[in-house]
Amino acid sequence: MERNDLVVADMKPTKVKKTKRSATRLGKEGSSRKSGMPPGSLIHIGQVKMQKVRFDLIEYNAESFAEKKNVDFEELVFDDKSTFKWLRVIGLHDIALIEKIGKKLGLHNLLLEDILNTGQRPKLDTEPGFVFLTLKTLYQENGSSEISSDQISMVLQDRLLISFQESDLAIFDPLFERFNNPMSRLRLFGTDYLFYAITDLIVDEYFKVIENLGESIDHLEDNLPDMPDKQVSELIQQNRKDLLFVKKSIFPLREAVMSLLKSDHPLVDPNHNRYFGDVQDHVMQMVEIIETYRELNSGIRDIFLSAQSYRMNQVMKVLTIIGTIFIPLTFIVGVYGMNFEIMPELKWTYGYAGVWIVMITIVVIMLLMFRKRKWL
Amino acid sequence: MERNDLVVADMKPTKVKKTKRSATRLGKEGSSRKSGMPPGSLIHIGQVKMQKVRFDLIEYNAESFAEKKNVDFEELVFDDKSTFKWLRVIGLHDIALIEKIGKKLGLHNLLLEDILNTGQRPKLDTEPGFVFLTLKTLYQENGSSEISSDQISMVLQDRLLISFQESDLAIFDPLFERFNNPMSRLRLFGTDYLFYAITDLIVDEYFKVIENLGESIDHLEDNLPDMPDKQVSELIQQNRKDLLFVKKSIFPLREAVMSLLKSDHPLVDPNHNRYFGDVQDHVMQMVEIIETYRELNSGIRDIFLSAQSYRMNQVMKVLTIIGTIFIPLTFIVGVYGMNFEIMPELKWTYGYAGVWIVMITIVVIMLLMFRKRKWL
Amino acid sequence: MERNDLVVADMKPTKVKKTKRSATRLGKEGSSRKSGMPPGSLIHIGQVKMQKVRFDLIEYNAESFAEKKNVDFEELVFDDKSTFKWLRVIGLHDIALIEKIGKKLGLHNLLLEDILNTGQRPKLDTEPGFVFLTLKTLYQENGSSEISSDQISMVLQDRLLISFQESDLAIFDPLFERFNNPMSRLRLFGTDYLFYAITDLIVDEYFKVIENLGESIDHLEDNLPDMPDKQVSELIQQNRKDLLFVKKSIFPLREAVMSLLKSDHPLVDPNHNRYFGDVQDHVMQMVEIIETYRELNSGIRDIFLSAQSYRMNQVMKVLTIIGTIFIPLTFIVGVYGMNFEIMPELKWTYGYAGVWIVMITIVVIMLLMFRKRKWL
Amino acid sequence: MERNDLVVADMKPTKVKKTKRSATRLGKEGSSRKSGMPPGSLIHIGQVKMQKVRFDLIEYNAESFAEKKNVDFEELVFDDKSTFKWLRVIGLHDIALIEKIGKKLGLHNLLLEDILNTGQRPKLDTEPGFVFLTLKTLYQENGSSEISSDQISMVLQDRLLISFQESDLAIFDPLFERFNNPMSRLRLFGTDYLFYAITDLIVDEYFKVIENLGESIDHLEDNLPDMPDKQVSELIQQNRKDLLFVKKSIFPLREAVMSLLKSDHPLVDPNHNRYFGDVQDHVMQMVEIIETYRELNSGIRDIFLSAQSYRMNQVMKVLTIIGTIFIPLTFIVGVYGMNFEIMPELKWTYGYAGVWIVMITIVVIMLLMFRKRKWL
Amino acid sequence: MERNDLVVADMKPTKVKKTKRSATRLGKEGSSRKSGMPPGSLIHIGQVKMQKVRFDLIEYNAESFAEKKNVDFEELVFDDKSTFKWLRVIGLHDIALIEKIGKKLGLHNLLLEDILNTGQRPKLDTEPGFVFLTLKTLYQENGSSEISSDQISMVLQDRLLISFQESDLAIFDPLFERFNNPMSRLRLFGTDYLFYAITDLIVDEYFKVIENLGESIDHLEDNLPDMPDKQVSELIQQNRKDLLFVKKSIFPLREAVMSLLKSDHPLVDPNHNRYFGDVQDHVMQMVEIIETYRELNSGIRDIFLSAQSYRMNQVMKVLTIIGTIFIPLTFIVGVYGMNFEIMPELKWTYGYAGVWIVMITIVVIMLLMFRKRKWL
Repeated sequence: MERNDLVVADMKPTKVKKTKRSATRLGKEGSSRKSGMPPGSLIHIGQVKMQKVRFDLIEYNAESFAEKKNVDFEELVFDDKSTFKWLRVIGLHDIALIEKIGKKLGLHNLLLEDILNTGQRPKLDTEPGFVFLTLKTLYQENGSSEISSDQISMVLQDRLLISFQESDLAIFDPLFERFNNPMSRLRLFGTDYLFYAITDLIVDEYFKVIENLGESIDHLEDNLPDMPDKQVSELIQQNRKDLLFVKKSIFPLREAVMSLLKSDHPLVDPNHNRYFGDVQDHVMQMVEIIETYRELNSGIRDIFLSAQSYRMNQVMKVLTIIGTIFIPLTFIVGVYGMNFEIMPELKWTYGYAGVWIVMITIVVIMLLMFRKRKWL
Repeated sequence: MERNDLVVADMKPTKVKKTKRSATRLGKEGSSRKSGMPPGSLIHIGQVKMQKVRFDLIEYNAESFAEKKNVDFEELVFDDKSTFKWLRVIGLHDIALIEKIGKKLGLHNLLLEDILNTGQRPKLDTEPGFVFLTLKTLYQENGSSEISSDQISMVLQDRLLISFQESDLAIFDPLFERFNNPMSRLRLFGTDYLFYAITDLIVDEYFKVIENLGESIDHLEDNLPDMPDKQVSELIQQNRKDLLFVKKSIFPLREAVMSLLKSDHPLVDPNHNRYFGDVQDHVMQMVEIIETYRELNSGIRDIFLSAQSYRMNQVMKVLTIIGTIFIPLTFIVGVYGMNFEIMPELKWTYGYAGVWIVMITIVVIMLLMFRKRKWL
Repeated sequence: MERNDLVVADMKPTKVKKTKRSATRLGKEGSSRKSGMPPGSLIHIGQVKMQKVRFDLIEYNAESFAEKKNVDFEELVFDDKSTFKWLRVIGLHDIALIEKIGKKLGLHNLLLEDILNTGQRPKLDTEPGFVFLTLKTLYQENGSSEISSDQISMVLQDRLLISFQESDLAIFDPLFERFNNPMSRLRLFGTDYLFYAITDLIVDEYFKVIENLGESIDHLEDNLPDMPDKQVSELIQQNRKDLLFVKKSIFPLREAVMSLLKSDHPLVDPNHNRYFGDVQDHVMQMVEIIETYRELNSGIRDIFLSAQSYRMNQVMKVLTIIGTIFIPLTFIVGVYGMNFEIMPELKWTYGYAGVWIVMITIVVIMLLMFRKRKWL
Repeated sequence: MERNDLVVADMKPTKVKKTKRSATRLGKEGSSRKSGMPPGSLIHIGQVKMQKVRFDLIEYNAESFAEKKNVDFEELVFDDKSTFKWLRVIGLHDIALIEKIGKKLGLHNLLLEDILNTGQRPKLDTEPGFVFLTLKTLYQENGSSEISSDQISMVLQDRLLISFQESDLAIFDPLFERFNNPMSRLRLFGTDYLFYAITDLIVDEYFKVIENLGESIDHLEDNLPDMPDKQVSELIQQNRKDLLFVKKSIFPLREAVMSLLKSDHPLVDPNHNRYFGDVQDHVMQMVEIIETYRELNSGIRDIFLSAQSYRMNQVMKVLTIIGTIFIPLTFIVGVYGMNFEIMPELKWTYGYAGVWIVMITIVVIMLLMFRKRKWL
Repeated sequence: MERNDLVVADMKPTKVKKTKRSATRLGKEGSSRKSGMPPGSLIHIGQVKMQKVRFDLIEYNAESFAEKKNVDFEELVFDDKSTFKWLRVIGLHDIALIEKIGKKLGLHNLLLEDILNTGQRPKLDTEPGFVFLTLKTLYQENGSSEISSDQISMVLQDRLLISFQESDLAIFDPLFERFNNPMSRLRLFGTDYLFYAITDLIVDEYFKVIENLGESIDHLEDNLPDMPDKQVSELIQQNRKDLLFVKKSIFPLREAVMSLLKSDHPLVDPNHNRYFGDVQDHVMQMVEIIETYRELNSGIRDIFLSAQSYRMNQVMKVLTIIGTIFIPLTFIVGVYGMNFEIMPELKWTYGYAGVWIVMITIVVIMLLMFRKRKWL
């Protein structure tokens, strides 16, 4: 072990200027901070989202269920196999602690590195003795249209599940309701089912975000004519970015779950494959919906460009109609404004009336011509 | 079993504001309502399309055929293997009932969940003892151009087929005509052939919808010059959406039928593979047609944008011709409208006539120039 | 057998309004007419292209060659294996006859259905005892640029080939010339070689159509500047459609021939695989050419749009030059057309000349400015 | 054999109007001339590029090297295995001769057909006893930017290589320099190495053409602002076509060399696979470069369209500025050009000066407004 | 061996005009210089980046660590297997020296050719006795936005690693810090781990470049409204090129590392596969980010084009408003500037005032109309 690999960074929660939807968010924010370090160097990449890393331990089996909050990691013993155990690690920035967990549970440093790097793409790793999955939760904070993401990592071992999360999100609350029901599959089926149940919970959550995107696309399409141009093209780009962001979080999951299904890992009861197949199914569906939304969004851009072009046409038509009618008339009246001494028409009794007749005739002809061209 | 998993929702048929072709329709409407629930939670997702769930039972073999409408599910016995049985479940919103069926026939909750979720993508599931297929019917209600879709699910078991449908659509009527013919393959070949016949019926129905889309594209192309711009770009986007919707309903079927052909499931007579191969063939053909239509639709958009640009050109040309001719003339007549005391031309006998000659010469030269540039 | 499956339709040759290149042509015209019918229902889909179905029988071997036109199908006997036999069925609309052939030769109804459905995509079916291939001929009638297509189906059995064609096209004529040569491979190699020779003939014919498309694209590109905008965008879309149509007819053939090569069917002499490999090669080449043409066509569209934009620029420049020069001058002469009692300039001896000098100076400056901006 | 299959065409060198870069060049020029002929019909497709077909024979081994030009094919004997032999056939249009070669060396007519058809796509054919490769040389004649291509075919047999080329290109000259060196691998390694060396020579030549294309793209991008619009869009399309042409010539080679590597053909020493792997590598690299260039070319098109749009903007701005300033002023001076008897302003002492002040004020305000909008 | 294959070129460091981001840079600069040479000809392709080729030798094991700079290659002995050896070759242009290394270590000339050709795409070659990897470092010189790339090649042999680099880049410095730590994995794990550590270092470096690209895209998007059009479209093309360049350097690495993982090469300890898997992971992530950036860049182009179009609209609107208001008014005042003798209105007491009332009414109506159309 290389002690000097431990870089304790980002320990204090800082006021981070919330990055807006941007290329750097879509890239891997902060990953470059690692370059030059040895592989498996533990460094927390991402924002520090909470004050202090917390450990919660849930012990359960068919007969009993107990949740202990804020346990002291040093005192934990995992030898007792009479209960299933779920250790929740909430907060990722205390690297020394994370490293202790790794040592105690026999996790490789490269794996801890993946847990700490919140820019990690969803991936599954199976090795003898454990299954590792890292994935993203997607959520929108109250009233905000901005899609946030937290990284959840899980290590499944024999009768033990350790979950790592960046912050104290409430998304696991529905699980606890089910835990309280002694007949619930959660209580009966062991940690591999819990592993699945968490994955399922997170994936189902994606539907909310995707639905909001769908509504935002619908809203944009419905209100296209009334919105200012600038806003429309910004919203189109925003939708495009959000769809890219969601796709990036969901797409690799398909492959990850597939490889779990194919791995026949001894820690996963083959009877539960059906459940993971269901997750697979949902992910596939979401991927299709996202692709569909991307096409719709492009379609809206087309409509928008065509509408811009149309309005331009309208503006030009008005100018052309006015110009075409009045420019020649102005010429005519200009003619009789000339001061030549010999201009016979000026002396005619009906000269003035005649000019008016000529001019009205011209206007009528032009209006007819415009109507024929469907400009009016 | 978790009884509290049963969420009885949407029990009363409600006046649903018909959603128009929209992103949310193309997504999975209402799927997010499930998030946070345990897997296999039975909840009906979709509109309630009829009053009461109904059961129809068809019993048939080479000798006899009987259809019993509105049977009482509780009294049904499936032990008698002397006839083939087709149980039609019409209406999906009575979750308690659906769950009873599941228990009686040994269907897993996740499978029932797929049956109830009308946003499910077409999929095939083979397990020892049954084959499960869920797919979409596509239809257009009288005179409407809106494409509606109902979800049909089928469970094939030994000498038994259970079909689930959202509403009492008439699409199965042709089957009954054939059932009445004792020499019909339907009567002779058992439930796997019935399973196929229903699939074939539904797939053949797609051709109608696709043909209507083809006609709508043709109509759009033929009438492009006479339609208002706004309508054209809306129709193009509409076609795009409809094609996406149809593609989404049909595309996954290819894979589903393929996996049935490869599964060598004991419930499907290998001699009938030829029939499923035929369905596969039709689906492939439709997928190709849809891709072709999508290209045509893009082509129309190109024509349309070019036509917009062309019209703009025309408008500008008119303004330019008028402006180019009359603006210089107006200047000339302006010159002789000046009130300088010493302006010799004003006193010339042929001054006025001379100005006219100059102006007519200018007009002629300009017209010639325009003709040379092919503007006239 | 279900006798009522036989739907005798389209028996009378009707004056069909020739459909123009359209989405419905690119789709599967009339396929929806079948929906609701049992699988394997024999119904002719397509135009009736000739009066009466005709049977021609060619019997040949190394020693002899005989062609009998208009044979009576009922009297045909296929037992004699001393000669190779080629039965040509010309015309598809007499369903009862087609069904009789099917019965006599042991062809499945689904296969007959494919023969009758002229919207069928090219496909190969190998079963013990026969090889079935359906494909399209493409041709352009004299002087017409419209690409027509006829469907040819072939069933290869032991020493027997049956071909089905919609109309009495002359494309097989070159074969007869070769048949007359006793040293020709056609005479020596049996029906699998004939099967190949027909396929080769049809595929070689595609090159003509593709070359015409190439010339049409070249012609369009060369004459782009002189054509009216409307025509150009229509030709581009036309080319696009024709390329789609040709691609649709040719593309699936690649897979079909490939699967023949892989099937090692006992009816095909392995020494003849080389010939089918050659067909495969040609199909690949055509597919590449078509893709290339599609790109060229898009390139022409780009040039065209840019030319439109360029012309617009030119039009606007003319207006701007004229406007920029004369609008200020008109203002100046307007100033001295005012009737104020006190306007000292009007009384100056060189006032009028001065105004002219000012105006000429302005014009010169503007012309220089335009030249600098490269507008002139 | 079918003697009548021999079609002696194109025997006289004709003045061919050099086809310019065109769809027909990108297609398979003249291929349709063959349709209706039996397979394996020998017909020369392409331009006749030289007067008379010539045979050169190179005999070499570690000890000796001899080149005989203009040998008489009839007298050639290939039995002596003490030397390696390279027979160069220069010129393809003497079909009778080519056929004789085929007979003497046991080559199938379909293979000769591929040699004669200069529109053949690159392909490799391995059969017991020989390896056949046909590919394209690409070159640009002095000072010309037009990319020409010649077809080179090679048949590798035991200790014998026959190469077929359309014209007497100098591209093989570097080989002869190496042949003169007795320590050269060419002399030591046999005909499979020669086979490789020719392929390598041809492939390395591609880099020149690709580099010229790269320079042409760079040149276009650098000079974009100074070129006339018409020329730019033509150059973009030209680059697109050239890239398509080069891609079409190179791309299939990847597959061809791959299949040679996989074939383990006894005529190719496994120790030389490394060399073919190197060719494979180069082809891959070129394919990547071509794809990159295609993207760059599209990027230039975008810049160009945006520049067009920008210039349009500029033109319109000038007109708008001039119009906006002078049209209102012209109106004002028009007002005081009216001849009403009662117009009090006309009599005011400072009327004229006042009008000027009003007008100058308007001009100043407008200029400020334009500056605010960043139009000036 | 062919001595004359050695072409000593580029020996003197020359002042190379730094090529800007260009097609030739994205292609394979200078590769054509080789055409016509025999395969395996050693010629240095690329810029000469340093004065003299230098050799550094690092010898290390768990107990000791020694770095010798500027060793004399001739005196090197690799027989002693008690230490791991890392030979760094810094500078590539001394071909004779490179050839000597090749001979001493038994490397094939084709492999040396790849080392010398700095346009080589990343590739891995495994052969009995060694593993060869060539890849690119990407870096941006201080303050420059231009992405430079150097080629690093490595040959892994038993207890020996030879690295080849174009110039004396500092990127390996972090390794030396780790070497100084006797507990470092670098010291304990042998040359295959060093091989990995170098690869990892280089790949991690990519993140910096990618992040800078992300920032450049963000910066462009944020400042879009304030930048001149020309600059925007140039920046978009620049980003496109940079992304292409980076992609080209990174993409093939995925395949290379994959094939290393699959090769089970005896020189790579299977326990270290986990590390290469980690590199694979990072490469995958970068490829995804690059694709995302490419999409964002296209999105910015769309916004930009739409903004151009919008500004055009604005310009035209101003002209149209001014024109539409004043052109008719100018006509009216023109009417009363006519000099007809009989024009009754001129004599009316309230004629002048009346004209003003009419004109103001027209202006008001027009303004209302504009407001209704949302032009104001």
